[in-house]
Amino acid sequence: MLTDVDQILRDLEAIRAKNPVVLSITNYVVTNTTANALLAIGASPIMSHAVEEMAELVGISGALVINLGTVAQEYLAAMDPAWSAAEAAGVPVVLDPVGAGASTLRTQTPLGLLARHKAGIVRGNASEIMTLAGSGGGARGVDSTARTDEAAGFAGELARRHACAVVVSGEADLVCQGAASARVLGGSALMPRVTGLGCTATALCGAFAAVNPNPFEAALGACVVMKVAGEMAAEKAAGPGTLQLHLYDALYALGEKDLRQRLRVER
Amino acid sequence: MLTDVDQILRDLEAIRAKNPVVLSITNYVVTNTTANALLAIGASPIMSHAVEEMAELVGISGALVINLGTVAQEYLAAMDPAWSAAEAAGVPVVLDPVGAGASTLRTQTPLGLLARHKAGIVRGNASEIMTLAGSGGGARGVDSTARTDEAAGFAGELARRHACAVVVSGEADLVCQGAASARVLGGSALMPRVTGLGCTATALCGAFAAVNPNPFEAALGACVVMKVAGEMAAEKAAGPGTLQLHLYDALYALGEKDLRQRLRVER
Amino acid sequence: MLTDVDQILRDLEAIRAKNPVVLSITNYVVTNTTANALLAIGASPIMSHAVEEMAELVGISGALVINLGTVAQEYLAAMDPAWSAAEAAGVPVVLDPVGAGASTLRTQTPLGLLARHKAGIVRGNASEIMTLAGSGGGARGVDSTARTDEAAGFAGELARRHACAVVVSGEADLVCQGAASARVLGGSALMPRVTGLGCTATALCGAFAAVNPNPFEAALGACVVMKVAGEMAAEKAAGPGTLQLHLYDALYALGEKDLRQRLRVER
Repeated sequence: MLTDVDQILRDLEAIRAKNPVVLSITNYVVTNTTANALLAIGASPIMSHAVEEMAELVGISGALVINLGTVAQEYLAAMDPAWSAAEAAGVPVVLDPVGAGASTLRTQTPLGLLARHKAGIVRGNASEIMTLAGSGGGARGVDSTARTDEAAGFAGELARRHACAVVVSGEADLVCQGAASARVLGGSALMPRVTGLGCTATALCGAFAAVNPNPFEAALGACVVMKVAGEMAAEKAAGPGTLQLHLYDALYALGEKDLRQRLRVER
Repeated sequence: MLTDVDQILRDLEAIRAKNPVVLSITNYVVTNTTANALLAIGASPIMSHAVEEMAELVGISGALVINLGTVAQEYLAAMDPAWSAAEAAGVPVVLDPVGAGASTLRTQTPLGLLARHKAGIVRGNASEIMTLAGSGGGARGVDSTARTDEAAGFAGELARRHACAVVVSGEADLVCQGAASARVLGGSALMPRVTGLGCTATALCGAFAAVNPNPFEAALGACVVMKVAGEMAAEKAAGPGTLQLHLYDALYALGEKDLRQRLRVER
Repeated sequence: MLTDVDQILRDLEAIRAKNPVVLSITNYVVTNTTANALLAIGASPIMSHAVEEMAELVGISGALVINLGTVAQEYLAAMDPAWSAAEAAGVPVVLDPVGAGASTLRTQTPLGLLARHKAGIVRGNASEIMTLAGSGGGARGVDSTARTDEAAGFAGELARRHACAVVVSGEADLVCQGAASARVLGGSALMPRVTGLGCTATALCGAFAAVNPNPFEAALGACVVMKVAGEMAAEKAAGPGTLQLHLYDALYALGEKDLRQRLRVER
């Protein structure tokens, strides 16, 4: 059995060698930053919400990312057709329920999608994952009001219900699927001060899912890479602005030595 | 009576302690950058134009920012319902009439909104404010063709007509409401070469309005913070690209000493 | 006859002196970054897809950029009216067929526009230009799967068919129109790892077209400036994140000495 480092390195090399297309229906806050993160790690991003081209784009994609940050009708309309095409083609789907709990629309939309489709990975913050699992707790905007550890039971329940991997991002990331679970430590306290780094983790889940059919391993790889790159970036950053730029540089440069030195996964 | 520095520090500490949600219906050029500025200063941004969730999101927000940079119908449709919900809930509203004077649509849209609703703060460049006040002068795109000082009388008239605070951004910022007015100096000549720093000032007006019910004080705080952070950033920047990044770092780091050293307000 | 350096310097000075408005109907991945590039070079960007204001905005613009990165209906609807207004007003039009070949919609949309309107400059990567010229080859997402040199014959054919300048961006850029053609060398291998630098080249074509009525010269100027600025930025960058920021600084600072030292054009 491969160690985590070996597994993640193998996937990282596959991303860099194959440049898988990651199709994203995503929000207009993070189109640019998640595209840059995908390019930095070695994937080939395409962003669209044009329903007419969804089936064709899914056909050339290694993964589909559905991010609910912009819940306007013109974005939502593309999601069901894209997800159906992905299921038909065997393309893994990553769902990011941005702001679940903050409004009825942001809660009902991901619940509806999960009821109609099979997800590979669901990634959110503690408030979002707890909302989807039916905790009844609300959220306050798109930033979490709960801690990762509070969400652990809810994440496990959500993962079982939908037979998918679930990621709860936070100071420590939690990854779970079936009986497997892991906590990923590292990163930087500055990271929540940069918009869309959660969405970036979701995008990287797509890149890893495009080369690894095991959703738990793919999600773990994405979380580790975010934490390691965030830590590398924070060492060069003077604040959240410079952090974001150094993060892309770190995603681009990140190699075996960085993973061996910095990976902190608890089972 | 508090000095300007004391007032702004108190508001800044309140933003950082309470992390108020600032809901923005804004343009697709600046979603990412204004979200980052809001996070850097300590607020919690949410961007949406989904009409179905406006009332709910207003209900968890400390301020509503309506920015007219993207005047497409799917964005405009959310503005009246959001603003009505804000009025009902007592949530302050900041309006940015981007490009007023550049097209009939960009002139008529903010005039219509101001006729139907009560604004807390209106922030624009000289051309935009003069257009709203009925100067009859045109604009050339979204960059101002007039100087701040030319707009002073118009700004005062607009502030009286709508009983709100008005900000004219420029080499010197002008803030006025009723009999009060102030000029804010500082910043950097590089700032107009970064897209959306006017929109960023608008977003910060929202953050300050969320913690200070006095629109004039909130607007003054936002202008001062932009000028001080811009000046701090310019000292580290080699051009407009690096300026933008250092600006977020400065917004994040900005403290009492920076304000005391750099604040330049003329009454 | 002017040398390339003299010609490009003259145009660059004109852009910086006149600050021409460049109207862009563009994709939501690059609104911010292309606006920043236009501001850095000295132009005045305005981004819109509001059909009601297209004719008015074209009337104050020096060039119209139509970028097909977002092929959603609400964006497409503005393109024909804007282009017709530009033809009527004598405003040059630059077309970027993002992802042509990746989906039927992304192939048919630019072909339809080119059949109905007169383009000044068409800029794409090798896959996109080959697709428009009818090579029958597909693309894989928005990143090219072909090399610039493979596209040379197709670019020439496309330029003849539409009597416009055609740019094929790549490791070397190819610019052609009628009997004239040039290869532009330079830049950095990091550039394809930053999203939207092709769209940035397109935007700069708009800035140069606004001051130079010769489409070939305008396109050549934009390509040279991208290659030179990219090379300057790469010397300061540690990866794709920092590269993007230094690129704006370089576009802002770029002067005669930089052009004389770094320009590499082959006829």
